Amino acid sequence: MKKTELLYEGKAKKVFRTDNDDTLHVEYKDDATAFDGKKKEMLSGKGRLNNEISALIFAKLHELGIPNHFIERISQTEQRIRKAEMIPLEVVVRNRAAGSLVKRLGLERGQDMTPPVIEWYLKDDNLGDPLINEEHIRVLGAAAADELTEMKALALRCNTALIELFQNAGLILVDFKLEFGRDHSGRIILADEISPDTCRLWDAKTGDSLDKDLFRFDGGNLQGAYETIFSRLGGLTNDV
Amino acid sequence: MKKTELLYEGKAKKVFRTDNDDTLHVEYKDDATAFDGKKKEMLSGKGRLNNEISALIFAKLHELGIPNHFIERISQTEQRIRKAEMIPLEVVVRNRAAGSLVKRLGLERGQDMTPPVIEWYLKDDNLGDPLINEEHIRVLGAAAADELTEMKALALRCNTALIELFQNAGLILVDFKLEFGRDHSGRIILADEISPDTCRLWDAKTGDSLDKDLFRFDGGNLQGAYETIFSRLGGLTNDV
Ligand SMILES: Nc1ncnc2c1ncn2[C@@H]1O[C@H](COP(=O)(O)OP(=O)(O)O)[C@@H](O)[C@H]1O
Ligand SMILES: Nc1ncnc2c1ncn2[C@@H]1O[C@H](COP(=O)(O)OP(=O)(O)O)[C@@H](O)[C@H]1O
Ligand SMILES: [Mg+2]
Ligand SMILES: [Mg+2]
Repeated sequence: MKKTELLYEGKAKKVFRTDNDDTLHVEYKDDATAFDGKKKEMLSGKGRLNNEISALIFAKLHELGIPNHFIERISQTEQRIRKAEMIPLEVVVRNRAAGSLVKRLGLERGQDMTPPVIEWYLKDDNLGDPLINEEHIRVLGAAAADELTEMKALALRCNTALIELFQNAGLILVDFKLEFGRDHSGRIILADEISPDTCRLWDAKTGDSLDKDLFRFDGGNLQGAYETIFSRLGGLTNDV
Repeated sequence: MKKTELLYEGKAKKVFRTDNDDTLHVEYKDDATAFDGKKKEMLSGKGRLNNEISALIFAKLHELGIPNHFIERISQTEQRIRKAEMIPLEVVVRNRAAGSLVKRLGLERGQDMTPPVIEWYLKDDNLGDPLINEEHIRVLGAAAADELTEMKALALRCNTALIELFQNAGLILVDFKLEFGRDHSGRIILADEISPDTCRLWDAKTGDSLDKDLFRFDGGNLQGAYETIFSRLGGLTNDV
């Protein structure tokens, strides 16, 4: 399956068509952006680590029967995925209070919120990815009510799986963001990526951030943290 | 029933205790504030008009069997109400897109959204009254799930009643904000006020704003607009 023309270049990935209509080819980039792209840097290794980590996680979710777009890892920075008609929503699952939620609700950072809080954000850079509710989604026509139900159910199943996966790696899954799409038959599938760019992960022992917050707030070595996550998940950093 | 000590002074009203434990005495103020109090002015007549209009509307909702705090009008600027344990939420019902919703979702101003969109805001000046969802409300412990269901049902019944009331006065009810509380028996009742400060009203013929937007954006004569609304609702401006 050969990659053909560039379909889309986002903040984190380049997406190419292939000679198979149903299959896309993704290249993870080394750009790091935060705050809606207002802060931007190049970080060598980030594309590789996000690709490797996301591939590893999506493969695991496949095993658990969570329908997703992942087909196979091609190289350190590339993977093959199923094409989806993307739903312009971000589903955020929060196990503990952090980031914007702490500011919005005046909660204490780290507060346990079991059962997890689910939030919808409209994926629209011009509008600043606003928090929205299900009635807003209806008015926007972004997804049908039964699709929202399905996405929430899948998001909670992912959460259960990811909490355990990260726990076994000595990491606390604070929150994460998912994107879904419709496959060729209209079925909802998990798409996009799951990586330290899209999850808040804290070291279970020290409580240190090991995710994009390090970059957002200049707290420390982002690449080192991503390497730590990858190796704790069982990845081999020098794989080709 | 005599008013006793000041219980609470808000942006629009002073609330006093009375010699009856279950009853409060409210004085509507002439201050106009917008944008979370960042813009402030004194407008003679505003307290009177909001009191008169709110009294008239709550009496109507009583007739329709919608449980609320209103007991009686005392004077042009005062009324007696039942004390409620206020729920720190604002319920916004939107029939057409306007204001923050247009900005948040990038909708066209005036777009019909039937069935109406319901939103929850956390009533907290320090946090800027943020939009929240029902899971946030659970985490905050602000109200129980069955209370939210009841508040939504009451909000929709109010909407149906108010649309008709304003329609008969040549006005389009674009959106409005409600506050609820628990009465002494724990029952959810409609509280606070319904006035041109808390409703977006457009003239059905001209489309002109006849509400607080006039003040927010310096568009024109706020007091004149409020007088118009009151007299179209059948109020007698020179009542004592
Ligand atoms: N399976 C898929 N099919 C089609 N598009 C996808 C799929 N998975 C992810 N995408 C899209 O690929 C684009 C590139 O990703 P990314 O660089 O993260 O973009 P963004 O800057 O919008 O976050 C995004 O629009 C994302 O929604
Ligand atoms: N029935 C009621 N019982 C107790 N408090 C009430 C009742 N109705 C309204 N209130 C409260 O009266 C206070 C004063 O109103 P207002 O001046 O509008 O305050 P704010 O500046 O918070 O909007 C508010 O806190 C409001 O929630
Ligand atoms: Mg992305
Ligand atoms: Mg008020």
